[in-house]
Amino acid sequence: MIHNEWGNSVYPLVPGHELVGIATEVGSKVEKVKVGDKVGVGYMVDSCRSCENCDENLENYCPQLTVTCGAKYRDGTFTYGGYSDSMVADEHFVICIPDNLPLEVAGPLLCAGVTVYSPLRHFGIDKPGMNIGVVGLGGLGHMAVKFAKAFGANVTVISTSPSKEKEAIEHLGADSFLISRDQDQMQAAKGTLHGIIDTVSASHPVLPLISLLKTNGKLVMVGGVAKPLELPASSLLGGRKLIAGSLIGGIKETQEMIDFAAEHNVKPEIEVVPIDYVNTAMERLAKADVKYRFVIDIGNSLKESS
Amino acid sequence: MIHNEWGNSVYPLVPGHELVGIATEVGSKVEKVKVGDKVGVGYMVDSCRSCENCDENLENYCPQLTVTCGAKYRDGTFTYGGYSDSMVADEHFVICIPDNLPLEVAGPLLCAGVTVYSPLRHFGIDKPGMNIGVVGLGGLGHMAVKFAKAFGANVTVISTSPSKEKEAIEHLGADSFLISRDQDQMQAAKGTLHGIIDTVSASHPVLPLISLLKTNGKLVMVGGVAKPLELPASSLLGGRKLIAGSLIGGIKETQEMIDFAAEHNVKPEIEVVPIDYVNTAMERLAKADVKYRFVIDIGNSLKESS
Repeated sequence: MIHNEWGNSVYPLVPGHELVGIATEVGSKVEKVKVGDKVGVGYMVDSCRSCENCDENLENYCPQLTVTCGAKYRDGTFTYGGYSDSMVADEHFVICIPDNLPLEVAGPLLCAGVTVYSPLRHFGIDKPGMNIGVVGLGGLGHMAVKFAKAFGANVTVISTSPSKEKEAIEHLGADSFLISRDQDQMQAAKGTLHGIIDTVSASHPVLPLISLLKTNGKLVMVGGVAKPLELPASSLLGGRKLIAGSLIGGIKETQEMIDFAAEHNVKPEIEVVPIDYVNTAMERLAKADVKYRFVIDIGNSLKESS
Repeated sequence: MIHNEWGNSVYPLVPGHELVGIATEVGSKVEKVKVGDKVGVGYMVDSCRSCENCDENLENYCPQLTVTCGAKYRDGTFTYGGYSDSMVADEHFVICIPDNLPLEVAGPLLCAGVTVYSPLRHFGIDKPGMNIGVVGLGGLGHMAVKFAKAFGANVTVISTSPSKEKEAIEHLGADSFLISRDQDQMQAAKGTLHGIIDTVSASHPVLPLISLLKTNGKLVMVGGVAKPLELPASSLLGGRKLIAGSLIGGIKETQEMIDFAAEHNVKPEIEVVPIDYVNTAMERLAKADVKYRFVIDIGNSLKESS
């Protein structure tokens, strides 16, 4: 969005759709939040509130969804994101951050966290003892490993990079590691997984992933792969398998996710940086040189500069 | 199989994997069937009985599944199908036919019936008031319409043939009809269906079908389309949709299906023919000149010829 790579950016643009802070003021009819509360806002700040999706707490699928930055509210004003010292938001779209969850840890849960939590829950691949695969080990993937482990699953990371094995197992707690280009490894793991969360947004073949699934296995894509997927129907028929997509999560589910994270100590791996480091952080992000999310500490940046 | 189009036929070959009759003899340890009972056999006559699939009553997904004709039992003998005056089968793979279901009606339920019943049930697209699409109106499709109606769904038939509209609505009881090549009709129906059973095995685009689904909508393929499906992941992400495959059904589910059919008067449309008509029937079948299944009445054919 910063570089207008999607062609729809409007400047001045304030990025940031995973933001947390302290409530400094609340409207007279606000019930969910009081001054001093730890609060957060994720991917969205508005939706129609009256369609079938909104009625079912799936605001994320509302056709009139308003995203947190670079979009327009229904009154025509622009939405500005979280790289800011303050924000005004409708309480419906505000997430309450549990007391025991540090602010810097809560931030990356608001989009990356719920994006993997939601499909694990919705598709029922969240049961203790299940074998769950996670494709890709970036911002989304490392959270998928942590949530799946918290649900009691046996987690297999599937990656093109053999160099990530040690990190995946020793640091993130995955149980095993599969190199997707290693045909022997992939063959040996055929039919072993109950579900897979695929976080990779670069084009990649899905048929080898389908082969890893057991009967009734589920492959859920959360990365927006641009190139059309190609797969033979027979790969789904022979085992009643499915391939699905999932996009972030609704507000109710985001609250549930963050409460679960606080209770089960599920935390993203972060590198906290001051606001004047943001351009360097962006450059490092483009090179995937971060484990696994930068968090900009705007509050302390402001204190130091004042 | 008759013409060896799959390249694996072994002659002499006796076709037929939807067969019904009266039990004439039972083994001393048989508990499910007694002499004189109406019984049937569907797509399979054996499986390993010890794998995870078999344990979960999903013999149809057992890797050692033995199909009813043109295959080999574990002892190496060939399986011969139902175009026959008698058959010996393991009671586990025998379906009990309810008394009020005529034999000729029960036959086509044993494969075509369960092939559409199973995914409607398994994927939860069997609830009263749901909007269910059925793609293709042949042997499988017409049964999908009837089962979905029996579950209380609003059924839309989706077809390339405008000529089938009258038949679908007036005769089979569908609620509406969509011509898949009519862009205006397809556009108007976007986001309206909870689920679709796609029975077409010829190559066809699936993206327009995905567009017809609501949030959480499910497209289930039951036809073995040879050419790989192509679809953008974004079409699944934007609405948490899924595309799945389903192959026939297990024995327990087949029994449940046939009991349901008997109770709710779900009957295939059939044309009963004598055995000496079989070659003509095969020619007509190749031209899709049947509504919707031929049933060979071997019992009466034998009586007449004796």
